[in-house]
Amino acid sequence: MNTAVFEKRRQDLKEEMEARNLPAMLVSLAANRYYLSGFELHDAQCNESSGWIVVTPDEDYLFTDPRYTDAAKKVWKEENICVYSASKHKQVSDFLKGKGVKAMGFEPKALHLFDYDKLADHMDLKVTENIVEALRIYKDADEIHRMEESIRINHELFEYIEGELIPGRTEADISWLIEKYFREHGAEGMAFPSIVGVGPNAALPHAIPGETKLRENELVLIDTGCRYLDYNSDQTRTFWVGDKPSDRFRKTMDQVRAAQQAAIDIIKPGLTYVEAYEAAYAVFAKEGVEAMFTHGLGHGVGLETHEPPSLSKAAQGTLKPDMVVTVEPGLYDPAWGGIRWEYEVLVTEDGCRVL
Amino acid sequence: MNTAVFEKRRQDLKEEMEARNLPAMLVSLAANRYYLSGFELHDAQCNESSGWIVVTPDEDYLFTDPRYTDAAKKVWKEENICVYSASKHKQVSDFLKGKGVKAMGFEPKALHLFDYDKLADHMDLKVTENIVEALRIYKDADEIHRMEESIRINHELFEYIEGELIPGRTEADISWLIEKYFREHGAEGMAFPSIVGVGPNAALPHAIPGETKLRENELVLIDTGCRYLDYNSDQTRTFWVGDKPSDRFRKTMDQVRAAQQAAIDIIKPGLTYVEAYEAAYAVFAKEGVEAMFTHGLGHGVGLETHEPPSLSKAAQGTLKPDMVVTVEPGLYDPAWGGIRWEYEVLVTEDGCRVL
Repeated sequence: MNTAVFEKRRQDLKEEMEARNLPAMLVSLAANRYYLSGFELHDAQCNESSGWIVVTPDEDYLFTDPRYTDAAKKVWKEENICVYSASKHKQVSDFLKGKGVKAMGFEPKALHLFDYDKLADHMDLKVTENIVEALRIYKDADEIHRMEESIRINHELFEYIEGELIPGRTEADISWLIEKYFREHGAEGMAFPSIVGVGPNAALPHAIPGETKLRENELVLIDTGCRYLDYNSDQTRTFWVGDKPSDRFRKTMDQVRAAQQAAIDIIKPGLTYVEAYEAAYAVFAKEGVEAMFTHGLGHGVGLETHEPPSLSKAAQGTLKPDMVVTVEPGLYDPAWGGIRWEYEVLVTEDGCRVL
Repeated sequence: MNTAVFEKRRQDLKEEMEARNLPAMLVSLAANRYYLSGFELHDAQCNESSGWIVVTPDEDYLFTDPRYTDAAKKVWKEENICVYSASKHKQVSDFLKGKGVKAMGFEPKALHLFDYDKLADHMDLKVTENIVEALRIYKDADEIHRMEESIRINHELFEYIEGELIPGRTEADISWLIEKYFREHGAEGMAFPSIVGVGPNAALPHAIPGETKLRENELVLIDTGCRYLDYNSDQTRTFWVGDKPSDRFRKTMDQVRAAQQAAIDIIKPGLTYVEAYEAAYAVFAKEGVEAMFTHGLGHGVGLETHEPPSLSKAAQGTLKPDMVVTVEPGLYDPAWGGIRWEYEVLVTEDGCRVL
């Protein structure tokens, strides 16, 4: 494996650490760990870490359990790997002390209280805030290429799936057709479990595809994404089953697409996250339907499906070049259904490009 | 949804809370939350909880974000649901204070330091140790039925896949055939990403199925499981591709199966976890191959693929009726390959039954 890209990213982290006076940094969030090392993008279970890395101004260390020793050796200098067993926290601390590390920053959103307490018995731990996430927010050329491929497969999926929206098939049937298509057309797997919602189910932001059948003259919302070389896509479309979309469907679709376009039209470096949200909201407000827009406008995508930034009414920050964000306004009525349309855009030097 | 089973489980938890003088209990581990509520078995991402529940001696409360409001209402009294937004921790605390809850136990292995700190600003939090896991360790009749179904599909998968082990196919090809079979034969999904290891790859405890091709006269190890009505299966087999298994394959297989049988022969209520491990280890030691047995004997399975108990040399505890554990000894030589054979057994009143 080419490890130069990971070394470069750790170098960037070291600059951030120096600016914060951090003598070392424990990285435990799976996507951050992978971003900096190439070691294991996912944990075995959410309550079962596949490993940690510790970055210092000079050497960097990788900690894992015996299952991953071989995977570790493929990306890391063997003398800087520590394979722990039952007394994990003491072994990690002893190893680090042997390297002169007595204090380190850590990721409070990715370290359980149990691990914190056990490590704090031996080490001085300092709270940090999204340092690695802030690096990941800017995609380099290779990352953008991978995301473009992932999104390309996703676009092809929608072309295919539109022809499969046959009355009588269930939401679960469609969900499985989606997964099969992705896996058989170059994707490594799903970015997240697909949402397939028929009629009123489309108004549920987190509908699990079930036994509800597609019906003629009814809408179906599909939110799905795949993974290509570790990078996720996230796309939503809402389809009408049959030839004659209802007036309400057409009108609501126009409103949603207009709100999306209004945001895309103004997204560029310097725009605040809230301003992007407000551009879509204003279109809905003008039509008097803003109460049916019940979520944020979008979020970052990359190694995780949901990652910073968040384009919502409470978000703080400013768009900058090389960010990739979703733009996904929607309007929902539990008694009727919902329409959402989602693109991913890359922020460029002077605007944005729909991927 | 029938919520009586979840109420019964919360009642059991309340007895444990009373014995520990806990005035309330915050449950944040996804599988524990689901076990007690029927609400969302999985979190959206490991760093993005789908919700928490708080159990008290009388009323119980469910906390989630707007995406899951409808899912929450299906399993919970509406007046006891709190839907939080940006200021989650304050909203949760204010809601609980309004109900008279000022102190509660929490799960240190399932609460990030970030959440702990923010909650501890408002509440008195008390460390607890695996209280809900200790309830989950005993499977009731319905859980056992679901696991039997999950394992039945897994057994059928192995019968099918043996016929698909055709030289030239890659590990990744086989992995995808497995997933398709599961999904098209009644399983909801995978229990975990399959391990498919050809030859030396079979010695990697965490081999990701790759482009290595199956070869005539070579072994392949397959460790895979599916989910049926939320319950996982976990099974390993090692196959020989071709008609004439090598002497080493046959001899190693005999040793592995003998070790497995030795453990199954003595597993019964009262046996310690370590004694189960040692029964398999002793068979290997007698043959002088114990150094090639590099992991524990097994683990509990249920809503999670890996859950207590752990049958390893460092484990503490005693087998009891209604536990379901894997028995999966293996022998590995990185230069050659590896053989593992895994069954799941249900501990009965006077022994165990292979599922």
